[in-house]
Amino acid sequence: MATQKRVWLFRDGDKSMRDLLGGKGANLAEMTNIGLPVPPGFTVTTEVCNEYYANGAKMPEGLMEEAKAALADVEAAQGKKLGDPNNPLLLSVRSGAKFSMPGMMDTVLNLGLNAETVESMVKATGNPRFVYDSYRRLIMMLADVAYSADYDHLSKHDFEHMFRDYKSSLGVTDDLEVSADSMKQLCDDYLVHFKKQTGKDFPQDVFVQLQDAIEAVFRSWNNERAFIYRRKEKISDDIGTAVNIQAMVFGNMGDDCGTGVAFTRNPSTGENKVFGEYLINAQGEDVVAGVRTPQPIEELNTYSASLFNEFVAACATLEDHYKDMQDIEFTIEKDKLYILQCRSGKRTGPAAVKIAVDNVNEGRITKEEAIARVDPNLLTQCLLPVISAGAKYDTIAKGLPAGPGAATGIAVFDANRAAELGKGGKGEKVILVRADTSPDDLKGMLAAQGVLTERGGMTSHAALVARGFGIPTVAGCSELSIGANSFTVRATGQVIKEGDNISLNGTLGEVIVGEVPVEEAALSGEFGIFLSWADEIRGKFGVRTNADTPKDTALAIKLGAEGIGLCRTEHMFFEGERRPVVQRMILAENDADRKAALDELLVFQREDFRGIFEVLEGRPATIRLIDPPLHEFLPSLDGLIAEVATLKALGKSDPAKEHLLHEVEGMHEINPMMGMRGVRLSIVFPQIVEMQTRAILEGAALVVKAGGKAVPEIMIPLVGHVNELKFVRERLEATAKAVESEQGVSVDYSFGTMIEVPRGALTADEIAKEASFFSFGTNDLTQMTFGFSRDDSDKFLKPYVEQKILPGDPFESIDQTGVGQLMEIAVAKGKSTNPNIKLGICGEHGGEPRSVAFCHKIGLNYVSCSPYRVPIARLAAAQAALGKGVSDK
Amino acid sequence: MATQKRVWLFRDGDKSMRDLLGGKGANLAEMTNIGLPVPPGFTVTTEVCNEYYANGAKMPEGLMEEAKAALADVEAAQGKKLGDPNNPLLLSVRSGAKFSMPGMMDTVLNLGLNAETVESMVKATGNPRFVYDSYRRLIMMLADVAYSADYDHLSKHDFEHMFRDYKSSLGVTDDLEVSADSMKQLCDDYLVHFKKQTGKDFPQDVFVQLQDAIEAVFRSWNNERAFIYRRKEKISDDIGTAVNIQAMVFGNMGDDCGTGVAFTRNPSTGENKVFGEYLINAQGEDVVAGVRTPQPIEELNTYSASLFNEFVAACATLEDHYKDMQDIEFTIEKDKLYILQCRSGKRTGPAAVKIAVDNVNEGRITKEEAIARVDPNLLTQCLLPVISAGAKYDTIAKGLPAGPGAATGIAVFDANRAAELGKGGKGEKVILVRADTSPDDLKGMLAAQGVLTERGGMTSHAALVARGFGIPTVAGCSELSIGANSFTVRATGQVIKEGDNISLNGTLGEVIVGEVPVEEAALSGEFGIFLSWADEIRGKFGVRTNADTPKDTALAIKLGAEGIGLCRTEHMFFEGERRPVVQRMILAENDADRKAALDELLVFQREDFRGIFEVLEGRPATIRLIDPPLHEFLPSLDGLIAEVATLKALGKSDPAKEHLLHEVEGMHEINPMMGMRGVRLSIVFPQIVEMQTRAILEGAALVVKAGGKAVPEIMIPLVGHVNELKFVRERLEATAKAVESEQGVSVDYSFGTMIEVPRGALTADEIAKEASFFSFGTNDLTQMTFGFSRDDSDKFLKPYVEQKILPGDPFESIDQTGVGQLMEIAVAKGKSTNPNIKLGICGEHGGEPRSVAFCHKIGLNYVSCSPYRVPIARLAAAQAALGKGVSDK
Repeated sequence: MATQKRVWLFRDGDKSMRDLLGGKGANLAEMTNIGLPVPPGFTVTTEVCNEYYANGAKMPEGLMEEAKAALADVEAAQGKKLGDPNNPLLLSVRSGAKFSMPGMMDTVLNLGLNAETVESMVKATGNPRFVYDSYRRLIMMLADVAYSADYDHLSKHDFEHMFRDYKSSLGVTDDLEVSADSMKQLCDDYLVHFKKQTGKDFPQDVFVQLQDAIEAVFRSWNNERAFIYRRKEKISDDIGTAVNIQAMVFGNMGDDCGTGVAFTRNPSTGENKVFGEYLINAQGEDVVAGVRTPQPIEELNTYSASLFNEFVAACATLEDHYKDMQDIEFTIEKDKLYILQCRSGKRTGPAAVKIAVDNVNEGRITKEEAIARVDPNLLTQCLLPVISAGAKYDTIAKGLPAGPGAATGIAVFDANRAAELGKGGKGEKVILVRADTSPDDLKGMLAAQGVLTERGGMTSHAALVARGFGIPTVAGCSELSIGANSFTVRATGQVIKEGDNISLNGTLGEVIVGEVPVEEAALSGEFGIFLSWADEIRGKFGVRTNADTPKDTALAIKLGAEGIGLCRTEHMFFEGERRPVVQRMILAENDADRKAALDELLVFQREDFRGIFEVLEGRPATIRLIDPPLHEFLPSLDGLIAEVATLKALGKSDPAKEHLLHEVEGMHEINPMMGMRGVRLSIVFPQIVEMQTRAILEGAALVVKAGGKAVPEIMIPLVGHVNELKFVRERLEATAKAVESEQGVSVDYSFGTMIEVPRGALTADEIAKEASFFSFGTNDLTQMTFGFSRDDSDKFLKPYVEQKILPGDPFESIDQTGVGQLMEIAVAKGKSTNPNIKLGICGEHGGEPRSVAFCHKIGLNYVSCSPYRVPIARLAAAQAALGKGVSDK
Repeated sequence: MATQKRVWLFRDGDKSMRDLLGGKGANLAEMTNIGLPVPPGFTVTTEVCNEYYANGAKMPEGLMEEAKAALADVEAAQGKKLGDPNNPLLLSVRSGAKFSMPGMMDTVLNLGLNAETVESMVKATGNPRFVYDSYRRLIMMLADVAYSADYDHLSKHDFEHMFRDYKSSLGVTDDLEVSADSMKQLCDDYLVHFKKQTGKDFPQDVFVQLQDAIEAVFRSWNNERAFIYRRKEKISDDIGTAVNIQAMVFGNMGDDCGTGVAFTRNPSTGENKVFGEYLINAQGEDVVAGVRTPQPIEELNTYSASLFNEFVAACATLEDHYKDMQDIEFTIEKDKLYILQCRSGKRTGPAAVKIAVDNVNEGRITKEEAIARVDPNLLTQCLLPVISAGAKYDTIAKGLPAGPGAATGIAVFDANRAAELGKGGKGEKVILVRADTSPDDLKGMLAAQGVLTERGGMTSHAALVARGFGIPTVAGCSELSIGANSFTVRATGQVIKEGDNISLNGTLGEVIVGEVPVEEAALSGEFGIFLSWADEIRGKFGVRTNADTPKDTALAIKLGAEGIGLCRTEHMFFEGERRPVVQRMILAENDADRKAALDELLVFQREDFRGIFEVLEGRPATIRLIDPPLHEFLPSLDGLIAEVATLKALGKSDPAKEHLLHEVEGMHEINPMMGMRGVRLSIVFPQIVEMQTRAILEGAALVVKAGGKAVPEIMIPLVGHVNELKFVRERLEATAKAVESEQGVSVDYSFGTMIEVPRGALTADEIAKEASFFSFGTNDLTQMTFGFSRDDSDKFLKPYVEQKILPGDPFESIDQTGVGQLMEIAVAKGKSTNPNIKLGICGEHGGEPRSVAFCHKIGLNYVSCSPYRVPIARLAAAQAALGKGVSDK
């Protein structure tokens, strides 16, 4: 498995080697080779990381020798040597997996400083404050990444806390106010603290430092936040991280130094203009960590036009070379520019669309490349709600528009609490409010509607993550003073406490008191152009929607749906005034009572269908006949048991209630998922579906008579045996024909079935003879193929995914090996007896990009999904047509 | 489809033509051709019956013309003509499907009598009483079969009732005491009654009679009792019945006439001796209907040795020709013997085995033919309980031993009530007690433990059916007077009422008051020989048992099991003293408490397994780790809700109960079948299966140390993804190795899995890499492949089978098209990656003959079933090895 060569010099690699060198390493190699000013260095491959884990988390033998050989090359290039007391080389050690995982893994800077080299550095730079500041940082970082897991109180936070206390004792607040001597004292305090906690000295041997740092990067591959991030981003756990070791350059050697992060275009809006921030006299982590609020990149022009122009030129070179927007880290050391890193930049959905469209217009890429490049899931952000036009609201502060979209919820000041209360927890709407956010806050951010921070810029990790996941975010809002349980508006003294309602306008950076009305996003020009390209490319592979009302149908059509793939007729039964009628129908004790209730329902359903057909304007509508067990429409058994027991204990008697309990008990099922539902209901109680078929045909007839068109595709659910379909279809065809003759019009109707029971897929050849179409109900098919009750599977599915027993949740993305195999069997068998059968999918998978690609691959005619996922499906369908499985993971 | 020739003369057919001519018709043709004295006739084919139904239940055009042509041939042979006023031919019209359905369809005798022919018959025979008796019967039968469905009060029962009243008015009880004049008067009364009910005359046109009778036979194919019988016997509804039209001969022309039914060997015991009954001066229906109790066939010898010898010779001819025991209907008309019908005789299980073995010993058939011939399901009867040896009981009456075996239950005097209360109803043990039984009582008989009748012989339909279905039956018990709600012992006046406990010893014909202790049958000599032949023939295709205790295991081994195919470890958890420990384990609030409970269970389970291994003496035991959801071991949620609600309403508080409710609520599942069970439990709560593995290995080690052998095959249930098996297997292998090392012995253990989730079958290639064996759990596989919850499916499965949506209950016999397809996929895929994998089945299908044949066909190594089905499986396996799908249907 392992390639012989475990350590690669930058000059020996290139950008195609992402698997082996990681994204960062491959790009450093590429940039080195296209002549950009990159400090020299080398990369330990991702395979070594896997070797490390396969080896029981032990450093592979001989690795350090190979590293030392590469180091000699770097030392030669820089004319310095690591640990040389006279002319020491300092190194940065950074993680770098194939896919970017910003801030999730560990970094060590200033490696090579020790008691001896510190002294020579002071001599060489004449800047003792800078040197001790660097040493302080090294001690803090190495202790944090390599020792804090095994010893207490060695985390970065602990050291930052010591520094803060120290600054307090000095009576200063800004780091720059701390003198060289004080910084030296702080280093000594750090070293004493380190020894106290570990019982040993901070490593003075620079090669021990190097080995510690490399191992720490490997270990950070499996830290909790990296693990969560990979789950969320569907990155495999097996690919490992590379380690990049590079000569240090310093942005914190004085006021002719600086460091920054920039994008070649605006990552929020996509605007074609360099966008970024830098800090004078600082190291990169100061920008990234968001502790100091940096200056916009344009200010560099004021400081030095030539430096700024050199930087802009470098950006252009990179864009031309990579043909995409790049995210760049740079450092200026004594007025010389160094590019430390470049990678494809994370961007919001709107930015991704605009950049793709602009790049096509600028002649840099083809439409197909543009379509292939955008992660379909990002499009959700283009549909993010905005504050309703004309709504009046009270903006109490403005910060940076770090993540677009509007959000409203209660203020929560702790990430864990936000996770508990928010999405995935109790489902409340929360806004996470923090002085600054760190990667540890990821879980809380994902659970929040929005994020608000006092510190941190547009490129802080928090902002990057927020944008990546489409969380409306206002960052660096220094007008607020954010504490542990409340925040204060500095100007007015207004206090907002945990639990108070606030809102954010992430698009404009506004912080608002109370709730605001939010509404749909307007679909921007580039969005429309982009999706029209997607439609061109996907060709005949269709996208429909799951919708049960005229309103949802209209929305979906606006978003590009070409028809309805699933209209759940029973959803219409749950609505307010209808439910009592449905209950009467179910509990009727004779046919006359049942018929009376059904006649009432007929009136409702006919209007429902008419409304839907009108909105569809001739587009097809696959309408599923009643599916759930009838007891779902009745009061719960548990509640009735308690009520009746209580009444009995009190000596009261309520015969009606007792009768209802008796009825509900009689209909109770042990496993309702596999009980009296779907086509089984239609066979045992045919009256309901006869009424529904009548309602569909009468609704369609009204539209046809009014000069319109209606194309109902009547779908019979849960068919496992051809005879079920045959039996019901024959009866319902009779009803349909009767309505046509009563109404004196012809309706373009057809009958088909869901394929959602394994036996349905296995005998699709027989079933296809009786069906005009199949629609895969992959929710139920997944339930039955795995034997996973979706209502109950949380308790084991979560551990399964965490323990890697399953690669992911099969209810999210189709299990292609198992469930997909059944689908392929059904497609092949279905076409064998009915070559013209129409094939679609209406499970929730129909809007999930990888599942869409699979559906395209196995030859379905269309996918169907909820209205808001229609644009995602359109793009995913186009990517599938381009032979692209998923974005690029 | 239809063969050109729709009507076949007996002399043109032969016994190979059962499909076309039905069993009876083919045999009449065969007998005609081997020279037995068969009255001439012809057969209307089964295809015409299907044509009749395809034609919307209308008689096919031209059929009667074909029938008349054949009739001419019969008329020529007999020198008489149908309807000829001077010399009339009379006909019988009988049903006859491919498979015998005794008494289920209709018959018309004496066809051809009318006002004119009656007179000429009186002249010709000089026996007016006989002629009017025959006419009376014709009117009754034709009215019953051809008119009673459309008009009221024309059933056989109505006419019988008129006859009984008439006899009362005459002051006589015996039919023979009714004079010729009275009989003539009765005919007139019948004709008046017929006209009153129908508004038209009884058909005088003999061809109308013939057409009515043929159509009535066709219609009787779909009467309710025939339908129920076919369900039970798994006879297809599509094969139709033939109609046999034959010249009448008369057993009721005088005292030199008679009629009888006989078997060439004893159908209860298999003894090689002609067995049967006859009635002097009677028609066949008198014997069959059980109204008069007939004389044993041996008495014929007393009447006429030459007739008896002729009869015995005919029996021998038939046996030599058909090579099997035959069931014969015969008539003696004026001292001349006629054979009216022969067919393979229904027999009890013990008789079937003995006859098969005897026929081999007599050189008539081979062992293979003997094995192929016996319906495996019949073997159940060889295992029927008998009254415990030495038990004292009070025999109040003796009747005919019509169905072997002992039965005990409450007396029920109505067939519908028996069906309500008995098997398939409320599950009570009932004994159906009737003056006589008719085919209408079938449902009640099937629901009863045993049947007791006052009238009817060993060959009455009731007795035939009872024996066929293995229902212990005492028939013709004339010592009792059986009424509508009670019976009286004539000798003592003792009265037994509905609901009183009685018992039957069907083997000896004893009627017993109260309950008696019953015990296992001793396995007779022929039974052992027969099954040893089955074992020779089935070769390596194995038969194991499903057993959870040493006792069941010992029983199964006695019945021929070669090991355990399924030991359900959780069954051991349900037993008395263990359940509280299991509950403590489940509800433990900390690891220490849980461990303590598990340690207690370990002691129990170790002993369980040791006991089983000892009994097995080195045979393999497939032991399934815990499968059901844990809440099955706790009190029911509904009960707790009611209890707690009651306590609350009364102002009492029981925190322990409330806590328990809370816990049970927390574990409640919407669809427990697809919830936290099987391997999922093992992954989330590994302690239980670690304990179980330890118990298995420690139990095995104890046996090995004592010089024995133990071969545990540890089976992990509900695997759908290879990683589940891998994860659990790795952990449990570690436990197993630890026990081996602690105990210092080596145990021949292996790990495998159930294939019971569709995904498990679909990905069997991956799973087989981690498994030494697969065992198909076809109960769950059927549930998930169909999406049928077995707990809830009654409500739709019954209508499904009745409405022919499914050909049968897939939980009874494997659905080969769907579930079987998954099994074939799993076998092929499993062998592709693990050619030596051992394959078995442990669902309840493992003891069902057709399913056993399927398992053999797809290449499984063994089947496993409950102990009492082991002999059935051994025979079915042998038949499968002979290439025989099922008995002969």
